[in-house]
Amino acid sequence: MVTRTIDLRSDTVTKPTETMRLAMAKAEVDDDVLVYDPTARQLEIEMARITGKEAALFVPSGTMGNLISVLVHCEIRGSEVILGDNSHIHIYENGGISTIGGVHPRPIKNNEDGTMDVGLIEAAIRNPDFEICYPKTRLICLENSHANTGGRCLSVEYTDQVGELAKKHGLKLHIDGARIFNASAALKVPVDRLVQAADSVSVCLSKGLGAPVGSVIVGTEAFINRARILRKTLGGGMRQVGVLCAAALVALQENVPKLVTDHKNAKTLAEGLDKIEGLSVDIASVETNIVYFDILKGSRICALKLGKIMEEHGILLMPDSSSRVRIVIHHQVSASDVQYTLSCIKQAITGVTDENGGT
Amino acid sequence: MVTRTIDLRSDTVTKPTETMRLAMAKAEVDDDVLVYDPTARQLEIEMARITGKEAALFVPSGTMGNLISVLVHCEIRGSEVILGDNSHIHIYENGGISTIGGVHPRPIKNNEDGTMDVGLIEAAIRNPDFEICYPKTRLICLENSHANTGGRCLSVEYTDQVGELAKKHGLKLHIDGARIFNASAALKVPVDRLVQAADSVSVCLSKGLGAPVGSVIVGTEAFINRARILRKTLGGGMRQVGVLCAAALVALQENVPKLVTDHKNAKTLAEGLDKIEGLSVDIASVETNIVYFDILKGSRICALKLGKIMEEHGILLMPDSSSRVRIVIHHQVSASDVQYTLSCIKQAITGVTDENGGT
Amino acid sequence: MVTRTIDLRSDTVTKPTETMRLAMAKAEVDDDVLVYDPTARQLEIEMARITGKEAALFVPSGTMGNLISVLVHCEIRGSEVILGDNSHIHIYENGGISTIGGVHPRPIKNNEDGTMDVGLIEAAIRNPDFEICYPKTRLICLENSHANTGGRCLSVEYTDQVGELAKKHGLKLHIDGARIFNASAALKVPVDRLVQAADSVSVCLSKGLGAPVGSVIVGTEAFINRARILRKTLGGGMRQVGVLCAAALVALQENVPKLVTDHKNAKTLAEGLDKIEGLSVDIASVETNIVYFDILKGSRICALKLGKIMEEHGILLMPDSSSRVRIVIHHQVSASDVQYTLSCIKQAITGVTDENGGT
Amino acid sequence: MVTRTIDLRSDTVTKPTETMRLAMAKAEVDDDVLVYDPTARQLEIEMARITGKEAALFVPSGTMGNLISVLVHCEIRGSEVILGDNSHIHIYENGGISTIGGVHPRPIKNNEDGTMDVGLIEAAIRNPDFEICYPKTRLICLENSHANTGGRCLSVEYTDQVGELAKKHGLKLHIDGARIFNASAALKVPVDRLVQAADSVSVCLSKGLGAPVGSVIVGTEAFINRARILRKTLGGGMRQVGVLCAAALVALQENVPKLVTDHKNAKTLAEGLDKIEGLSVDIASVETNIVYFDILKGSRICALKLGKIMEEHGILLMPDSSSRVRIVIHHQVSASDVQYTLSCIKQAITGVTDENGGT
Repeated sequence: MVTRTIDLRSDTVTKPTETMRLAMAKAEVDDDVLVYDPTARQLEIEMARITGKEAALFVPSGTMGNLISVLVHCEIRGSEVILGDNSHIHIYENGGISTIGGVHPRPIKNNEDGTMDVGLIEAAIRNPDFEICYPKTRLICLENSHANTGGRCLSVEYTDQVGELAKKHGLKLHIDGARIFNASAALKVPVDRLVQAADSVSVCLSKGLGAPVGSVIVGTEAFINRARILRKTLGGGMRQVGVLCAAALVALQENVPKLVTDHKNAKTLAEGLDKIEGLSVDIASVETNIVYFDILKGSRICALKLGKIMEEHGILLMPDSSSRVRIVIHHQVSASDVQYTLSCIKQAITGVTDENGGT
Repeated sequence: MVTRTIDLRSDTVTKPTETMRLAMAKAEVDDDVLVYDPTARQLEIEMARITGKEAALFVPSGTMGNLISVLVHCEIRGSEVILGDNSHIHIYENGGISTIGGVHPRPIKNNEDGTMDVGLIEAAIRNPDFEICYPKTRLICLENSHANTGGRCLSVEYTDQVGELAKKHGLKLHIDGARIFNASAALKVPVDRLVQAADSVSVCLSKGLGAPVGSVIVGTEAFINRARILRKTLGGGMRQVGVLCAAALVALQENVPKLVTDHKNAKTLAEGLDKIEGLSVDIASVETNIVYFDILKGSRICALKLGKIMEEHGILLMPDSSSRVRIVIHHQVSASDVQYTLSCIKQAITGVTDENGGT
Repeated sequence: MVTRTIDLRSDTVTKPTETMRLAMAKAEVDDDVLVYDPTARQLEIEMARITGKEAALFVPSGTMGNLISVLVHCEIRGSEVILGDNSHIHIYENGGISTIGGVHPRPIKNNEDGTMDVGLIEAAIRNPDFEICYPKTRLICLENSHANTGGRCLSVEYTDQVGELAKKHGLKLHIDGARIFNASAALKVPVDRLVQAADSVSVCLSKGLGAPVGSVIVGTEAFINRARILRKTLGGGMRQVGVLCAAALVALQENVPKLVTDHKNAKTLAEGLDKIEGLSVDIASVETNIVYFDILKGSRICALKLGKIMEEHGILLMPDSSSRVRIVIHHQVSASDVQYTLSCIKQAITGVTDENGGT
Repeated sequence: MVTRTIDLRSDTVTKPTETMRLAMAKAEVDDDVLVYDPTARQLEIEMARITGKEAALFVPSGTMGNLISVLVHCEIRGSEVILGDNSHIHIYENGGISTIGGVHPRPIKNNEDGTMDVGLIEAAIRNPDFEICYPKTRLICLENSHANTGGRCLSVEYTDQVGELAKKHGLKLHIDGARIFNASAALKVPVDRLVQAADSVSVCLSKGLGAPVGSVIVGTEAFINRARILRKTLGGGMRQVGVLCAAALVALQENVPKLVTDHKNAKTLAEGLDKIEGLSVDIASVETNIVYFDILKGSRICALKLGKIMEEHGILLMPDSSSRVRIVIHHQVSASDVQYTLSCIKQAITGVTDENGGT
């Protein structure tokens, strides 16, 4: 009998901890649209400090954080943004920068490590001499860690290089840092250094950090002032939002230090999966908390079937295709959950029960 | 010495009650983007029931509720919406339906009671025979109660009449019901009857109801399905949002019954203000929880100055112009707060201390 | 038997004259997208001179002229434009400034003379202190002459006053001068003086002036440079466009002087119609080339029926409603056409043949 | 001394012939916004016939033709279009489908022959099961011939295959057929067969066909009806447009048969250039009227310098980069112009005068 669920679909699925719930219950609040909610202010000041930027703004989601950031940098009609063709903004955010914001995307090939070749980026920057038929390049977007390539991290060096390119051409640089804390932990580089070259960063609080709701965007005072107006336009201005920010402040304290453990668990899982006959994992690519594994040809079950079997064991997975599965580790997945998962998957794939498996 | 603040700027300023905070701390939650958060579901089902609609969706704010509603009804490029020239959507929501949604507004004169003449609405509906130079009318918006006219209520009869007009011309009807519970309480008409003619309604939970954050939109299943996608696009999809919905469920239980008291307090305040020499209130217009009062010509102080003086007494007001002030009553304003406020305003305006006043 | 058609539906219906056709056949041309077409340049320079502005741009239509002008002045997302609620841009251009341009319109009541009260305009300008919930006012639009009020003219004094208001608030002023030459002729004020206060003007060449196709927008060099890019975006960049501009240059020479005659003919028509029993014309409002007449209650025929009867006589009218008809005079309507029209209408309305009538 | 200019920058630079000018001067016209201009109708009927579609619409430019087509197919907010990453729409049309139309582009790698791999197209079609975070794929765009790959042609087989894919997934197929007549001539396949699989096609009249202004879009009656409204919105509705359409009708008759000669001249030019030491041409890629040539490393002059030298000889070229030049042949470039051009370029590149060269 399944007594609890191990939810490996995403790091967005974590439940608020008791400390968070307590903090929410005690949070000092005010109307954050009319004035500043004190707890929201506290979170924003803290996030500005951590990221080394002037100012910060709490927003309901990472999607809104990216949307606002791109739209503020591209507030003049006729703007183009260079971004990865496998980036979250291009693939998973409903095309909102175009369909809502009227910004033209210029996607560049994402390499397997989440980078785009700097030469390709530079070649994609529009020549202002031909503005009669070109949109105006105004922004470059990076994503760190890069979700769709399995949570790979962009190095400081790479980020700085793109930042210099942006500066050289008078462009802005935005980093989708939904999982920037994961990148920071994996690279052992403080967040502020990692995003030093960026004009803006969006950071998710409800992924690896485990807060129930919200993201924060950071940048200059001027950027955040524009962002605050656009947040209101989009309907992201909330009232006594301190109740959410209180949980996020706890998340920053409690869960950031746990990210290294998440990464260790992910590595263990990846290695374990790769050893299962019929499965394959690119272990080197597992730099943070995301593991993609492939079900090799000839397997008795497909990804969808595997997901259904795992569900019976109380394990939730997210099939990415018929032969590929994504697993995301978070602070509510323990080392023994990983072992139990490995054991269940092995049994499902090979038909053989792992004698050491189970909780 | 001021011991507490009486915040009369808006009904958005209420702080969550202990019951709400407890409910938030205990809320059962899940990832509301990936699946349904159970508490969000519970709130949505309850709101659909109360409003008599098929389905409901929790959104971060009233602005997003209106924005999504208008955009879903007007999802085809080239749409026009008929709405009041003094409506919240036209005046206070950043023009988002155009600047984000590309919808063309056709504002019609709002009467002092918040209605628009039905004849004027009908005349504004575009003749489809001239579609070559006309946008296509797709939606009519009403607002009930109507904030900018002092919280006046639209009757069932009026709403039904506009609903019939909409139906006759194949248009949709959206009601900005940010304060529909106030209208319901004032008119003594159940909410579901009051919005029966509407295809969609947005209802605010963080105004008179006192929940910390959020609104709900209601409509058909098909409408809500479209709305859910657009909510994600705008960045209003939140994760463990049940923590907010739990507070809203408490708000529905605890605070809806208190609205009649709010209205009584507002009436008392209006009558008291009108008796103060140098002030004038259109008492008949005070149907719900909003009171506008005018500082007559020749007064020793303007609205801004009055606001500053009141602040010293721990009372927060919102000047609407140099001679007009808005006060909004909510469940955290007591009858004695009203008396104290009257006493302080009288003293500030007339220079005479009210012997019965004060805390 | 009808030998020719008298087309009174609009001044857009004129056919190019022989001189125009000859000019088109001989026009020197080049690719106006890659470089300047010499004839287009000549027209643009001439229009800049006539309007007293730095630069000009040929566009395919008045609608595009207005659309580009509004969008260039409002190129930052979140802009609002103040314009007449009965203006051509608000009523007859498909709502393109919103549906294509994302600009939020703030319509103000148009008076019967085409003006908007300056006090109302000023009151509608958004207070930048509340930018959190307000779109940003960036532009005021006037229309001169004002089509929907019967071609009434805005005086220099009024235009200057609105221009000063715009300047005071840091706004731009655009004049929809589709028929600015008519206003100039009627007011006996040169065009450049009439639009002196404006930052941009769109002038139609294919209405009263009788060119087959096109409008010109004028403004500063910087404005026109932005406009040229947007013209390309919208698809208004044309190649050997000199063939059209050649006709427009002839129109400027040949037809501008004829506008006073058009106005005289319109006045004659208006006076004649007003004398017909069962019809009514506000003669004072006939300042230029447009005549609206009302079919009084109790008439034997409605506007639609009248239109059909007139068609049998080779006269084309445009019913505006069931009891209102619009007639527009242009250089291909002669004084005797006016008499013939009067005679035919009288007969249709009264049932009595006018003995002086006929072709 | 230069007596005439050989303009090889584009096929958009042709001057109207005497026959066209005569046709323009005699064209029967009417107001094409109010009713149908008879000559425009004639052209539209002819173009519908040639392309095998129900209906057609004249528009001012190829850019507007593509913009309208994409926007009509994607008229619901939240649409995505799959198109080539090197296509004219993605690269050279100001990003208008996003910046004006709010459509999200999903660019797919263009192969050197102008195709996109059908497998890649299919993989890019969004899974409707995840519509919560995906825009909705509604359209695939092809370009035939494909300008940026040197005017290469898409075969009937390829086009049909993409058409079947579109149909299978409920998508529309638009062909940017700016130079579809060139493709037809090169492939020896009638235009209607070549675009049989397409729901809409835009065809340019002022490129290879040599008309002064305009494009035509074709599709179903319903599509063209929607397109006509959008044409008005964008400002592409023109009045006595028959003067332009008359020239286009001549172009269809006179210049379509000359395209094979253009292609022969292009081939001759390509072969001649490739023989010049220091230059390189991919001759196989020269299927129609466009020739790209590369100036090899170590050359004494760059593309820009070559362009300047050629200008002194009365030859206009368009440098594509510092080492790449584009030449486009059209009906006003003769076989002897080609020889003269070859001779001048050889002299400029090699420093040696070609004894057989020159006019």
